Amino acid sequence: MAGNTFGKVFRVTTWGESHGTGVGAVIDGCPPGIILDPLLLQAEMDRRRPGQGGASSPRKEPDEIELLSGIFTPLGEDLPRTTGTPLSLAIYNKDAHSKSYDSLREIFRPGHGDISYLAKYGIRDHRGGGRASARETAARVAAGAVAKQLLLAHDIKVCAYTVALGGVKVQKRDLSVINSNRFFCPDGDAAEQMEERVLEVRKQGDTLGGIVEIVADCPAGLGEPVFDKLEADLAHALMSIGAVKGVEVGAGFRVAEMLGSENNDPITPEGFSGNNAGGILAGISNGDTIVLRVAVKPIPSISKEQQSVNLENEAVTIKVGGRHDISAIPRVIPVCEAMVRLTLADHLLRHTAISAKG
Amino acid sequence: MAGNTFGKVFRVTTWGESHGTGVGAVIDGCPPGIILDPLLLQAEMDRRRPGQGGASSPRKEPDEIELLSGIFTPLGEDLPRTTGTPLSLAIYNKDAHSKSYDSLREIFRPGHGDISYLAKYGIRDHRGGGRASARETAARVAAGAVAKQLLLAHDIKVCAYTVALGGVKVQKRDLSVINSNRFFCPDGDAAEQMEERVLEVRKQGDTLGGIVEIVADCPAGLGEPVFDKLEADLAHALMSIGAVKGVEVGAGFRVAEMLGSENNDPITPEGFSGNNAGGILAGISNGDTIVLRVAVKPIPSISKEQQSVNLENEAVTIKVGGRHDISAIPRVIPVCEAMVRLTLADHLLRHTAISAKG
Amino acid sequence: MAGNTFGKVFRVTTWGESHGTGVGAVIDGCPPGIILDPLLLQAEMDRRRPGQGGASSPRKEPDEIELLSGIFTPLGEDLPRTTGTPLSLAIYNKDAHSKSYDSLREIFRPGHGDISYLAKYGIRDHRGGGRASARETAARVAAGAVAKQLLLAHDIKVCAYTVALGGVKVQKRDLSVINSNRFFCPDGDAAEQMEERVLEVRKQGDTLGGIVEIVADCPAGLGEPVFDKLEADLAHALMSIGAVKGVEVGAGFRVAEMLGSENNDPITPEGFSGNNAGGILAGISNGDTIVLRVAVKPIPSISKEQQSVNLENEAVTIKVGGRHDISAIPRVIPVCEAMVRLTLADHLLRHTAISAKG
Amino acid sequence: MAGNTFGKVFRVTTWGESHGTGVGAVIDGCPPGIILDPLLLQAEMDRRRPGQGGASSPRKEPDEIELLSGIFTPLGEDLPRTTGTPLSLAIYNKDAHSKSYDSLREIFRPGHGDISYLAKYGIRDHRGGGRASARETAARVAAGAVAKQLLLAHDIKVCAYTVALGGVKVQKRDLSVINSNRFFCPDGDAAEQMEERVLEVRKQGDTLGGIVEIVADCPAGLGEPVFDKLEADLAHALMSIGAVKGVEVGAGFRVAEMLGSENNDPITPEGFSGNNAGGILAGISNGDTIVLRVAVKPIPSISKEQQSVNLENEAVTIKVGGRHDISAIPRVIPVCEAMVRLTLADHLLRHTAISAKG
Repeated sequence: MAGNTFGKVFRVTTWGESHGTGVGAVIDGCPPGIILDPLLLQAEMDRRRPGQGGASSPRKEPDEIELLSGIFTPLGEDLPRTTGTPLSLAIYNKDAHSKSYDSLREIFRPGHGDISYLAKYGIRDHRGGGRASARETAARVAAGAVAKQLLLAHDIKVCAYTVALGGVKVQKRDLSVINSNRFFCPDGDAAEQMEERVLEVRKQGDTLGGIVEIVADCPAGLGEPVFDKLEADLAHALMSIGAVKGVEVGAGFRVAEMLGSENNDPITPEGFSGNNAGGILAGISNGDTIVLRVAVKPIPSISKEQQSVNLENEAVTIKVGGRHDISAIPRVIPVCEAMVRLTLADHLLRHTAISAKG
Repeated sequence: MAGNTFGKVFRVTTWGESHGTGVGAVIDGCPPGIILDPLLLQAEMDRRRPGQGGASSPRKEPDEIELLSGIFTPLGEDLPRTTGTPLSLAIYNKDAHSKSYDSLREIFRPGHGDISYLAKYGIRDHRGGGRASARETAARVAAGAVAKQLLLAHDIKVCAYTVALGGVKVQKRDLSVINSNRFFCPDGDAAEQMEERVLEVRKQGDTLGGIVEIVADCPAGLGEPVFDKLEADLAHALMSIGAVKGVEVGAGFRVAEMLGSENNDPITPEGFSGNNAGGILAGISNGDTIVLRVAVKPIPSISKEQQSVNLENEAVTIKVGGRHDISAIPRVIPVCEAMVRLTLADHLLRHTAISAKG
Repeated sequence: MAGNTFGKVFRVTTWGESHGTGVGAVIDGCPPGIILDPLLLQAEMDRRRPGQGGASSPRKEPDEIELLSGIFTPLGEDLPRTTGTPLSLAIYNKDAHSKSYDSLREIFRPGHGDISYLAKYGIRDHRGGGRASARETAARVAAGAVAKQLLLAHDIKVCAYTVALGGVKVQKRDLSVINSNRFFCPDGDAAEQMEERVLEVRKQGDTLGGIVEIVADCPAGLGEPVFDKLEADLAHALMSIGAVKGVEVGAGFRVAEMLGSENNDPITPEGFSGNNAGGILAGISNGDTIVLRVAVKPIPSISKEQQSVNLENEAVTIKVGGRHDISAIPRVIPVCEAMVRLTLADHLLRHTAISAKG
Repeated sequence: MAGNTFGKVFRVTTWGESHGTGVGAVIDGCPPGIILDPLLLQAEMDRRRPGQGGASSPRKEPDEIELLSGIFTPLGEDLPRTTGTPLSLAIYNKDAHSKSYDSLREIFRPGHGDISYLAKYGIRDHRGGGRASARETAARVAAGAVAKQLLLAHDIKVCAYTVALGGVKVQKRDLSVINSNRFFCPDGDAAEQMEERVLEVRKQGDTLGGIVEIVADCPAGLGEPVFDKLEADLAHALMSIGAVKGVEVGAGFRVAEMLGSENNDPITPEGFSGNNAGGILAGISNGDTIVLRVAVKPIPSISKEQQSVNLENEAVTIKVGGRHDISAIPRVIPVCEAMVRLTLADHLLRHTAISAKG
C-alpha cells in the first residue's frame, strides 16, 4: 500500500515529480464555505520559491497554483469558496533542465534516495529525485495554504523560523524580525553570521545543516491519547520532509538529563508556569503554545568529489552539478509550516467528529 | 476520528485502561501460517513487566496474554498457527489499586494528561491515566511479539537498549551485555552508575529521564518516498509512546552542524562506508542497519510536592503517591522494540502489495 | 490488507470464530458521554439468539455481552457512559459442539466458503465456517446496539422486517405487529403461512430464502456524492452479511421498467410526493424514509444428500448434520438493523467532521 | 470525512465537476512496471463518450486523458511504464454549456441531488450535478483503464452488457455481438427492439431504465470473509454509480424463492456444476465466473413538466432542457466495468499483501 496521502479527515494526496509535467495535490475533506483568496494562496508559494538569494537554488519556477476543482463563487461574492468537494490543484514545471541529469542515469548519488528507490521499485526516473525530490513539497505548501485558511477561522496560527544554521545559533527569538532576513531567523545578528557561513561554504562546494523551530497557537483538546498522539502525528508530518533527521517537542532531547520535578510544568489558576511539555500532554493539546524543533541535514548534492557506485556496482567518483541550494533552510521553513498546518487541520476535524453530542 | 489503530496493512487496534478489566489488542492483517509459540509471546511480556527491581513499579501483574481468536493448530502439529483472520488478545488487570486514586478525582496531576484529557472528552476516569496510561503499552508489546514472529521469517531483527539515564551515558555499545543488567544497557560500567543514580533519586522522591537507541536489520526497499517515509512512520510509532519527547534517525540532531561532505555516506561496491543516514534514504531502507534514538522524559508521578489546580481551577498542592517507577527506562525498551516491529511488519506487507507483478 | 473493520469514523473491528473462545468487537470513534444501559444492549442480542422456535437453530448460547473497556460511571450516576475511548466487547462461546465437525475436516460443504477460504488462506479451521460463520454476526449486533444509542440521541431510528419467506409474500406492512410473530413479519396472515412453509420444508431436510426490508428515519444531509454514496455504503454493509445476495434501495430493480416521469419523486412544499428514491438522492439522504431490501439465500447446510469433493478433489456425497436453521430469517433481521445502524452512525459522524465552520 | 477515494491498496481519488475545469483522478498504489499504452487508455474513454447515437447526450467531449505523473519510458522502450508512484490524470471539460443552467440556480430538479446536496453543504454549484454529475464517471473510466492493464497481467477479465432496457429483455447472451450494437447488448434482436423503444420514448420527452450484467473471470482466493466480502465491495462499487438502484450477485433476488437444495452449487472434480453463487462463496472468489447485475434508473432529466419547489420552498413547475440522454445505458456500461475492475485490482493487491510468506 503506497503512502502518498496525509491526514485522515483533512486528506491530502500529492502527485508529481521533479522533472515531469508538474506536481499537484488533491485535498479531500475540506469543509465547505471557506474563502480561498488566490492571492493569499500564492503568497505562501512565494515564500518557498527558490532563487531569492545566495542560499537558494537558481532554478526559476513561478510556482503558480492552478485550482482545478472544488471551488465556486456564489452570486454576489468576489472570491471563491470551497464547496466541500475535492480541491484539485496543480503547479506545472516550467524550468526543469532534465538534460543535465543524463550523466546520472547510471550512477547513484550519495545521500540521495537513488539506490534505495531502485531497490524498491525496480524502475527509476533518473531525472532529479523523482517523488523524493524537494519539488514535491511545492504541492504540500499549496495544500498547507488551504489548511491555513481553515485554521485561521478557528484562531489557530503556525509559525516556523530558523534557530541554527551551519553551527550559528540564535541567541534570542524575536518573531517580529523573521521576515526581515532571508533565513526567517528571529535574531538579526545571527542571521548576518548565517549569511557569512553560507558564502564561505558555497566557495567550498559544500552544504550546511541547521535547526528549525515551529510554534503553534492551538486550543486545548486536539489530539488522541494513544497511537495518534498529536506529537506523534506532528513527528510523522515533519519527519516526512526529506531533509529532516530528528524531531522533538517541548524540552525534547533535554528531558534525558532532567528530573521529574524540573520537567513537570506546574499548573496554576492562570495556566501552566512552564512549557517543557511543548503544549501537549498525553497526546492532547493543553492550550499552551505547541513547540517543535526539527534537525535539517545538509543538502546531499555537493560539487565536491564523492565516492559512489554505478548500476553495475562498480566504484565511480561523482561531482553533482546542476543548480542546488546550500541548505534546505530557508526553503524548508514554509514546508514545516505546511506540514504542521495539515496535521492541525486534520486533528481539528477529527476532534469535531468525535465530539458529536451523545 | 479516533486514533487507536496503528498500521495500514498489519493493523493493530488496542483497547483498555489502567484500571478497567484489562487491556488488549486486535491484530488484523497478519498473514496466515505463522507459528505462534505462547512461550515466545510471553517472554516478550516478561521483559516489560514491572516489579523486577529498584527502578520499576511495585505493581505486580503477571501480564499473561490470552489469545482469543485467529489461531488454529493443524492436525499433527504442536503449536498454533495464525489463520490470516483477526488475532484478538487480552491481558487482564489483576493488581489495580483503584482506591488509591480517589484523592485524584478532582485534581490534575502536573506532567500527566489529566487536564488535556478532560478538555477533549468532558468525561474522565480519574483512576490512573486512562488510555494514556503506560498500562496500555502491554497490549503493544503483545502485538509486537506477534510482529516479531512474522519479521523473523523475513530475517528482520530489532533490538533496543539504553544509551543514557539520568545523565549517565554509555561509553560503548556491547550488545552482548544488554541482558546482563536491568537497564538493557550495552555498557556494564555505565549500568552500575545508572543503578547508583536511580537509588539516589529515589530517596529524593524524584524521577529520571534518558535516551534509548533502537537498531534494526532490515532489507533494502521498505518504506515510501513521500508522506509515509520509513523514518516518518517510525517517528510516529516511537513518539506515540507516552514518555517520548524526541526522535532521531542516524546522525539525528548532529546533522545541524555537519557539512554535506561529512554527512553523505559514501557508497562502495562493498556497501555504504558510513551510516549517518541511519539505514534509510529518501524514506526507503537502504539495506544498512536502521538506527533510531528517542528521548525519554522523567516519569511525571513524583512524591515531591507540586503546584496544581482542581476542577474548580483553584490552586492546590499535590504529592502523587501510589506505586510508580523512577524512570520509564527500562520498561520502555520492549515498548520501543514493539513499535519498531509493528512499523516494519506493516511496511513489509505494504511493500509486498505494491510489488505485485505488473 | 484484511477487511475486518467497518466504518471510517465510527469504526468497528470484529474478531472471533464459530468454534473458538468467542467473538467480539472493538468500537473506535464512539463519542463520549453516551449512556450504555447493559439491559438495552442485551435486549438487542436476545432478538438475534437462536433457539426461539422451529425456524431457528437448536444451538443454545446466552450471548451475554461483556464490556471490557471504554465506559465509566460518573460519580452520582447509575449507568455507565462511553468515555470516547475504544469499547471492547466480547461474547464467549458456551455451546459449541466442535466434535460434530470432525467429519468435515476433509470435505468441502456446497454453498459454504470452505473451498474458497482454503484457496485464500491455505489453512482452515474446519469447525464451522470460521470467520464466515453466522456466529460472527453476534459481534455486529452488539456493536449495532451501541450505535443505536448514539443514533437515538439524534432521532435516527432503524427497523427491519420480513417481506417474503419461502415464496410467501406480505400483503401489507403493519409495523405494529412485527414483534407479535417470530418472523418479524408486518402481516400476521403471511406470518402464519410462513410458519407452515417452514414446517413443510423442515420435513424435507431443506431450507428457505426470503426478502428483508429495512426502513430508517434519518435527517437530510447524510452521505457523500461520489464513492461513499449513502446507498453505496449501505449496500456494502448489507451485502457483507453472509446470506445476502442482492440489495436494492427505493424502487430498486423495478426502476428497470419505469419511465423517468414515473420514477422521479415530485417535490412539493410539504415534501416529496413519492419515495421511489428510497430517501436518498445522489448519495445524500433527502429527509424522507430510507427504504432498503435484501435478498436472503436459503441456508446452505441441508440434510439432503449433496455432491461435493474432498481435499484430494475426489467426488464424495455429503449430508450436513449438526444444528442448523431452516432460514437465515428471522435471525438475519437484527443483523440487518445493526449493519444499517453502523453505516448511519458512521455517516452521522463523518458529516459532523465535514461541517466544521469554515 | 469525505468519500472521494475508492479502494484500500489500489486507491483512486477523483476530483472535478460537470462545469468546472475538468475532472481527474489520482491513482495511488499501482505497482511499478505496467505498460500504459495511451491508445488503449483512450479506447476505454471512447466507449463511454456521449454523442454516438440516438440514446446518448449531444454534448461533445473528446475526453482525452492527460497523464500528469507516475510514468516513465525506460531507455530503449517505446511505451511508458508505471513507476509505482501516483498516477495523476486529467480530462478537461471542453463543451460545457454552463449558461443553460442559469434557470436552475433557484430550483431543485426532481430525481436529482440538488436538494439533498444543498442540505449537506449549504453551498451549491447549480451548473449540472456538481460532483454527482455523470461527468465525474469519466475519471472512473480512465482509472479503470489503468486497472485493466494490471488485471490483464494476471489474466483477470471483465465485461459488461445490457440485459434489459425499457422493458425489452434479452433472450440470449451472445457476447460476440455486444460490440455490434450501440447498447452493448448480447442479443441482436433485442437490441433492435431497444432502439425502437428509445425512439418512441424520446418523442414523449421521457427516459428509460434497464439492467446491466457484468461478468468477470477471476482466480479463486480474492476477497475477505467478513466486512470486505468481495461481493460487498463490488456492491459498494456499483451502487456508487449515480443511476444504480439495485445490485445482485449470482442468482440474486431469485434466491428468495429457492430451496437450499436448488441454490447450492454442487461441487464436482471438474468444478462447480452450477453458478448460483455468482463466483463468490463466503466473500471469497471461488474460481468460477463472477456474475453481477445492476438496476439502472431512468435518467431524471426529462423535458416533461414536473412539480418541484424553489429555494424559498414555493411550488414551481419545471421542464429540464439542456442536452441529456434517454437512458444511462449504454454509457453506464464502461463505468460498471471500470468499477468492477477497480474493485478486483484492489483485492488482487490486498490478497498479495496478506499472503506474504509467514
